[in-house]
Amino acid sequence: MGQIITFGEVLMRISPRGNRKFIQSNTVEFYFGGTEVNVGLSIAHFGGNVKHITCISDDFIGDTAISYLNKFDLDTTAIIRTNRPLGVYFLEVGAVMRPSSISYNRSHSAFSEIKPHMVDWEKSLANGNWFHWTGITPALTQGSFDTLKEGLKLAKEKGMQVSADPTYRSGLWQYGVNSREALTELLHCSTIFIGGINEMNEVLGTNFGYTNDEFIEASKMLIEKFPSIVKVFDKIRTSINASWHKIRARMWNGEDFRETEDFDITHIVDRIGTGDAFAAGLIYGLQYYDDYKSMQFASAACALKHTYVGDVNYATIEEVTRILDGNVSGRFNR
Amino acid sequence: MGQIITFGEVLMRISPRGNRKFIQSNTVEFYFGGTEVNVGLSIAHFGGNVKHITCISDDFIGDTAISYLNKFDLDTTAIIRTNRPLGVYFLEVGAVMRPSSISYNRSHSAFSEIKPHMVDWEKSLANGNWFHWTGITPALTQGSFDTLKEGLKLAKEKGMQVSADPTYRSGLWQYGVNSREALTELLHCSTIFIGGINEMNEVLGTNFGYTNDEFIEASKMLIEKFPSIVKVFDKIRTSINASWHKIRARMWNGEDFRETEDFDITHIVDRIGTGDAFAAGLIYGLQYYDDYKSMQFASAACALKHTYVGDVNYATIEEVTRILDGNVSGRFNR
Amino acid sequence: MGQIITFGEVLMRISPRGNRKFIQSNTVEFYFGGTEVNVGLSIAHFGGNVKHITCISDDFIGDTAISYLNKFDLDTTAIIRTNRPLGVYFLEVGAVMRPSSISYNRSHSAFSEIKPHMVDWEKSLANGNWFHWTGITPALTQGSFDTLKEGLKLAKEKGMQVSADPTYRSGLWQYGVNSREALTELLHCSTIFIGGINEMNEVLGTNFGYTNDEFIEASKMLIEKFPSIVKVFDKIRTSINASWHKIRARMWNGEDFRETEDFDITHIVDRIGTGDAFAAGLIYGLQYYDDYKSMQFASAACALKHTYVGDVNYATIEEVTRILDGNVSGRFNR
Amino acid sequence: MGQIITFGEVLMRISPRGNRKFIQSNTVEFYFGGTEVNVGLSIAHFGGNVKHITCISDDFIGDTAISYLNKFDLDTTAIIRTNRPLGVYFLEVGAVMRPSSISYNRSHSAFSEIKPHMVDWEKSLANGNWFHWTGITPALTQGSFDTLKEGLKLAKEKGMQVSADPTYRSGLWQYGVNSREALTELLHCSTIFIGGINEMNEVLGTNFGYTNDEFIEASKMLIEKFPSIVKVFDKIRTSINASWHKIRARMWNGEDFRETEDFDITHIVDRIGTGDAFAAGLIYGLQYYDDYKSMQFASAACALKHTYVGDVNYATIEEVTRILDGNVSGRFNR
Amino acid sequence: MGQIITFGEVLMRISPRGNRKFIQSNTVEFYFGGTEVNVGLSIAHFGGNVKHITCISDDFIGDTAISYLNKFDLDTTAIIRTNRPLGVYFLEVGAVMRPSSISYNRSHSAFSEIKPHMVDWEKSLANGNWFHWTGITPALTQGSFDTLKEGLKLAKEKGMQVSADPTYRSGLWQYGVNSREALTELLHCSTIFIGGINEMNEVLGTNFGYTNDEFIEASKMLIEKFPSIVKVFDKIRTSINASWHKIRARMWNGEDFRETEDFDITHIVDRIGTGDAFAAGLIYGLQYYDDYKSMQFASAACALKHTYVGDVNYATIEEVTRILDGNVSGRFNR
Amino acid sequence: MGQIITFGEVLMRISPRGNRKFIQSNTVEFYFGGTEVNVGLSIAHFGGNVKHITCISDDFIGDTAISYLNKFDLDTTAIIRTNRPLGVYFLEVGAVMRPSSISYNRSHSAFSEIKPHMVDWEKSLANGNWFHWTGITPALTQGSFDTLKEGLKLAKEKGMQVSADPTYRSGLWQYGVNSREALTELLHCSTIFIGGINEMNEVLGTNFGYTNDEFIEASKMLIEKFPSIVKVFDKIRTSINASWHKIRARMWNGEDFRETEDFDITHIVDRIGTGDAFAAGLIYGLQYYDDYKSMQFASAACALKHTYVGDVNYATIEEVTRILDGNVSGRFNR
Repeated sequence: MGQIITFGEVLMRISPRGNRKFIQSNTVEFYFGGTEVNVGLSIAHFGGNVKHITCISDDFIGDTAISYLNKFDLDTTAIIRTNRPLGVYFLEVGAVMRPSSISYNRSHSAFSEIKPHMVDWEKSLANGNWFHWTGITPALTQGSFDTLKEGLKLAKEKGMQVSADPTYRSGLWQYGVNSREALTELLHCSTIFIGGINEMNEVLGTNFGYTNDEFIEASKMLIEKFPSIVKVFDKIRTSINASWHKIRARMWNGEDFRETEDFDITHIVDRIGTGDAFAAGLIYGLQYYDDYKSMQFASAACALKHTYVGDVNYATIEEVTRILDGNVSGRFNR
Repeated sequence: MGQIITFGEVLMRISPRGNRKFIQSNTVEFYFGGTEVNVGLSIAHFGGNVKHITCISDDFIGDTAISYLNKFDLDTTAIIRTNRPLGVYFLEVGAVMRPSSISYNRSHSAFSEIKPHMVDWEKSLANGNWFHWTGITPALTQGSFDTLKEGLKLAKEKGMQVSADPTYRSGLWQYGVNSREALTELLHCSTIFIGGINEMNEVLGTNFGYTNDEFIEASKMLIEKFPSIVKVFDKIRTSINASWHKIRARMWNGEDFRETEDFDITHIVDRIGTGDAFAAGLIYGLQYYDDYKSMQFASAACALKHTYVGDVNYATIEEVTRILDGNVSGRFNR
Repeated sequence: MGQIITFGEVLMRISPRGNRKFIQSNTVEFYFGGTEVNVGLSIAHFGGNVKHITCISDDFIGDTAISYLNKFDLDTTAIIRTNRPLGVYFLEVGAVMRPSSISYNRSHSAFSEIKPHMVDWEKSLANGNWFHWTGITPALTQGSFDTLKEGLKLAKEKGMQVSADPTYRSGLWQYGVNSREALTELLHCSTIFIGGINEMNEVLGTNFGYTNDEFIEASKMLIEKFPSIVKVFDKIRTSINASWHKIRARMWNGEDFRETEDFDITHIVDRIGTGDAFAAGLIYGLQYYDDYKSMQFASAACALKHTYVGDVNYATIEEVTRILDGNVSGRFNR
Repeated sequence: MGQIITFGEVLMRISPRGNRKFIQSNTVEFYFGGTEVNVGLSIAHFGGNVKHITCISDDFIGDTAISYLNKFDLDTTAIIRTNRPLGVYFLEVGAVMRPSSISYNRSHSAFSEIKPHMVDWEKSLANGNWFHWTGITPALTQGSFDTLKEGLKLAKEKGMQVSADPTYRSGLWQYGVNSREALTELLHCSTIFIGGINEMNEVLGTNFGYTNDEFIEASKMLIEKFPSIVKVFDKIRTSINASWHKIRARMWNGEDFRETEDFDITHIVDRIGTGDAFAAGLIYGLQYYDDYKSMQFASAACALKHTYVGDVNYATIEEVTRILDGNVSGRFNR
Repeated sequence: MGQIITFGEVLMRISPRGNRKFIQSNTVEFYFGGTEVNVGLSIAHFGGNVKHITCISDDFIGDTAISYLNKFDLDTTAIIRTNRPLGVYFLEVGAVMRPSSISYNRSHSAFSEIKPHMVDWEKSLANGNWFHWTGITPALTQGSFDTLKEGLKLAKEKGMQVSADPTYRSGLWQYGVNSREALTELLHCSTIFIGGINEMNEVLGTNFGYTNDEFIEASKMLIEKFPSIVKVFDKIRTSINASWHKIRARMWNGEDFRETEDFDITHIVDRIGTGDAFAAGLIYGLQYYDDYKSMQFASAACALKHTYVGDVNYATIEEVTRILDGNVSGRFNR
Repeated sequence: MGQIITFGEVLMRISPRGNRKFIQSNTVEFYFGGTEVNVGLSIAHFGGNVKHITCISDDFIGDTAISYLNKFDLDTTAIIRTNRPLGVYFLEVGAVMRPSSISYNRSHSAFSEIKPHMVDWEKSLANGNWFHWTGITPALTQGSFDTLKEGLKLAKEKGMQVSADPTYRSGLWQYGVNSREALTELLHCSTIFIGGINEMNEVLGTNFGYTNDEFIEASKMLIEKFPSIVKVFDKIRTSINASWHKIRARMWNGEDFRETEDFDITHIVDRIGTGDAFAAGLIYGLQYYDDYKSMQFASAACALKHTYVGDVNYATIEEVTRILDGNVSGRFNR
């Protein structure tokens, strides 16, 4: 397995314990995360060789972030340090009919002020065979968009696999670029699309619904528009409430449509990063398995992430495999 | 919105973390609450103008209690301080088939020794347009009953709205007064009845069952007996077990019977104060909405309270409104 | 009620908070447990007179263990102290489809090096009328097997009741003894069998399935083979996932087959020691009740244990009785 | 060593962590203590045979208190349970020039309502050879004074040693008895006086200063007035500030005056119960040692208590002995 | 006592427990502070009438900040809310020879983007008789400087007392203004100077040393240059190490030089905000006492602040007064 | 700077919070440490290139240990995993005159069962230029002694620097080897001796006292006996009590005797690993500085370690350097 490259902002997450709000707390817990590094850390935890590229504050908070990434044996050697602060987000974890609440302090962070010249892409991608990006990075600032674009172009030139998770968040994209145009440019460098109807509608300008037939039709249209893309993977979440979800996945790989059974996640511990756990499972799976089994692996990884507090999936390869083998009842051996 | 007056004991609640018993713990958490102040704090947290009248110990525990109330921007200027201790209750939060356990240390508290001359009701109600009381206060001591009675009489004279939540607890009423007679006297000063079949049976001396028809019949009888009362609101709780309840509400306003759909509260965090959250939602709602929408607002507030640890409802007006708008799946936007 | 004797290893359990893994933690909680002492502590907590015999380290960890047992007013006077360390186990509590994980450090513990001459069985059993053992003890070392055997023989001679819970764990039995032979020898000293199909198959060398008919057939065969055994009690667990189980029980007492209804344990707090809680409930129940009511008592005790963190059942006699009286909805009175 | 009897109120202490105030906290820690039970627990922890007699609430807080005492293997069989709450005190631990703050909620506690008929003194003192009392108990209520008096009279009749620690707190003695008269009556049943100039001045009505000469003179006068008393032990505390004290002791046993060197307690962890640790060390010491060595033992025990959080001295006999042997530099062996 | 006005940034402080670094932690504690609001909160805690003016994020972190200020009964009605995040700082508390470490994330905070038109100074100062400012505010941005300047000019016009604490931090003043010129302009609106030699040298362009004579000479020169200023108060800190300081104060009021004795702060809990506690004590004191006693009051308040974790001085008026009365040994009464 | 090799057991340390004993706790904190890995981690934290060689359990505790080492960017690629448990030690941190207490569970740990064939020394030392060992490793088992010996012989062959810290603990050395002979063999492969009079007396069989003259004489004798050794560094600790130490260092490098001034460590946070911090500082320092400055660096590192909880020195190169530059008063800049 060659080196997998992830690129994106590392954020410090600060959350009260359990389901408390900040207004009820004076003790909080912190984690580090960010959609792309979550993917990288999860793959590293499976044993993969992953390098994460980002820009981090040159203070003890930045040191702590790097130490956190090192725990997973992620390659942190290409990380840039500047004197801007690390981005922070505050999360209050909801329950039942109360959704989680989030507040960001990232708009002038170290990463948001990244510029293309700060990354030595040639060196960074030297041993890479896979590049993963998401729609968050181009949505932040012109600098982060340009830097990503430069990396993706080189990845394409080098013939790397490029997985795209073009998650769309309306609260971002504030700096003046047209989101569809930007994503279009980046998707032309990509080979695997990880996203659902919303994301396809966003980049295609369509209005497809959520049925499997529409998913297949949208996927075909996507592949037609972006010929470099060969496969589409979608994770479907059904929320009973903030504490109880169901998860399944479906795919179109140009030939076959497949879908998995539902995982019934009756007692969610933390849903942040579960989509990233799906992407990580998929990327890891595709190194070893066929498309369908990779999707199953990704679904199981995603389901397991709901049982870990924090942004990162602490599931091990053994835990995911045990579920793939049909052990979903949570019984333990001793 | 004029000033809402609440009157009643403030208690310090002490609870082990999670579902632990005291015998398993050496660290505990504390909160302040009490059925009437819970109502007041919840309305203040919605942005209402609320004054709470009570009697609190003149020590650092009393200082802490007042500081806790101030957090919510509740008007604490009418609070009396004496050298008796603050009442305390100990709560062990149950789970599944294990009920919560409670133990009180309140019988000689600062509040229990309140006397009518200690409250300047004229001044306290000067800007009030609503008075809320519960059946706990008259059940404590002759002094607390008398003090409440004096306040209610003035409220009636001033033409204030008076909401009554005559919760009946058999463990109280130890000081020699007949509970039905006492409540009857107080209900004659009241305009809104917040309670169900049990409370109506208690004050009417009847034996109605739980059907809607019986609820309507009981409400009519209540309104006949207490002509000042014009509306009856009832919250119905179905306990699957200590961790999983369903909540709905119904009302009779002299003309219409209405009921809400069930909220399915699959993962209860803390059920203390959920009835108070209903009362608070109702009182707040009735300032702005019609009876039915007020009851819906109250139900949503009550349901949300189950997701907050402590006695007080930390739900914001936005959170309640989002549920009224139909968003009950707990998904969060970012 | 005479004195109940339990004999077996006391382990220190170390667990992260909630559903965290060690790799996510730097604060952990500790408890003491072990299948036999869990039974003893639970009976002592019900108010029974219980003596636990074991071997514990002669250091501050051993002091802490004894202090923990003393909390329950268990008779600790027969406990032996040596300079070997106390056994430890590490537990990560799972959730939903993630099973709990366990890692033991017990193979050279104080208890594992126990030898028959170290226990004065005559004195230890002087006031005993019941002896409880499990399949863990003979599975550890030759010394622990021999010591147990000596105790059981004396118990048989003295005509004590002997309950056997021959839990089989394949990870143990590493020291060279044939497990079936060893258990056979010990079962010939026993009067009550607490175990299910798996345990009966293990000692009978059969291959029965899980139906009630097969349970009865296996029980009859067991009683035929071990004439000292007169009753068989079985607890059946259905795992929806690691957070949600159902529990029921069944029995054959030589004459009647009976089974209980399911307890639906929708929000598990900690499932460690729930089987021990069943055994404890059964032993306690059989001092006072008939077989069927004892089994009901045991089931309720077992169900309640799922709501307590740690290895020991903190349920009180009142809590169990309330459930026997049909109050399973977890409502609390105040 | 015969059984040592202690009699007095058990209080629940609730304190924020470290040096926080309640107003800064939402998490607190709880302990159980009370001057007489602190003495009993400390002696039990040294390995002594101690029975504590008290009256405790019949609820889960009372259960927790008894479980706490059982940890130390204290004999709790004579404890009375009533439906009054356990007394509580709140403590904020000071630092440097900030003194600790304390607030009591004990005036209608289970113990404060004790009456002589509730204690079976004959049975309770059956195996006793030492009775320890303090000036707190007679200062609470007529009932607690009368109950103590009855016990002391029987102790005197039986020829038991009786140690008196007549600590005087002006905030108590509110129920109408003259403190000097009450203490005088009790001291006439006592054999060992544990107290200093303030206490002697209080019971003698004198005005002695703090010099050694005055101490000797006061002691002589005390022994003359109370012929049953044969020895006087005094602990002298010098406060540099709330975090740094010096402790030494002196004695007059009718023949010799002796005093110890200062212990320099440069980093106090918790000073509550340090006087009780002195009394406990003295009582324990006097079972084995001469007066001077007992006083040294008591001083070392007292000094060590300053390093333990909570009311009880967790020092072991080995820790005290090591200091008696001259190892005061806190170096540890491994 | 009229209303005291404070104006400045409110920051969220995040710190690991005790002396841990972030790299050693996953749990942290948060507080709110900021040099000016620390002064305001401390005076409010003494019972003063204080209004704080600032600009805070319009999210749940901002809500939590306001709730925190409300605890102290500070007037928060003039606080502006915008959609920029609240400033944050991270603090690692040192010990012995290890200094504390600090990292700021405040450069694009809600407050840093304040502009003069956002504050209605006329309304804000309507009931004010004292305005307190520090050198932090003009050092942040042109907007914060301009807004402060406008407020101070109005304060001068209205004849309010204006206290200036022109703390100089070289890490600030990055936006292009000359610090001496800016401070000069602001000092011409001020009446009380709270600062030492460093601050006087900064604004005078002098190079005085730390002797009392030089302090007097510098003070005279300052008063000559800024005729509105009538008194100079200086707090002198001697650091033995990060855990042990000595504090004293000196003053020149145009006529007299006075200085206090040292407070020996042998066990520092938290030194953040101790300078603000001095300023608060001084402002509060000058409402009631003469200059010297006010300075003593301020010194005692400052000393006490070292014993409270967090930015705010939780000392009460009773605690400060007890020290003024000479009780510095930290003994407590009960 | 070439790669520094450390070899030795990694232990899990479990400690209650603050100065609590286990018997007072139910929550504890864990760390990883061990004298040699402490040295390695500290050097890695300074930025050095360090590889640690050890044998660790193949379970989630072992995974957690490796993740902990990775945080420091230590090279963990040569670590062996077996199915024996990781060694554990329990530590209760003392205060004032109470020493810390320690209890080990390491005698059958993964490392204790290491054998020479399990380590590929050729590969492990391929890039090494320094090897550090301590007297703990040969004291454990024959296997650990033999494995170390093999490594040291190769290191000597390769001409690497070898630092020896032959700490002598009488509680070890239980497996039958003569400690002096074993250490002698290992010292003949060493070039730097880190130890004091006790260690020199142990290996020389002498009886030198603690004066500087005797230190020089002993050092000369040591160098004569072990010609490979060229320098001796000694750290001298003066314990006022368990909370307050003084530290200084002295050296003999064959030519010069030098000693440092005392560091006065008035408020110790955690003294475990402070000797290892000295060794780490020395090894790091000797890569860049002369002997004397290296010793100063080592002393400052050692002093700083007393302010960090846990076994590892979290001091950064900047923190040590600041002290070398004379800033020992703990003032912080902002």
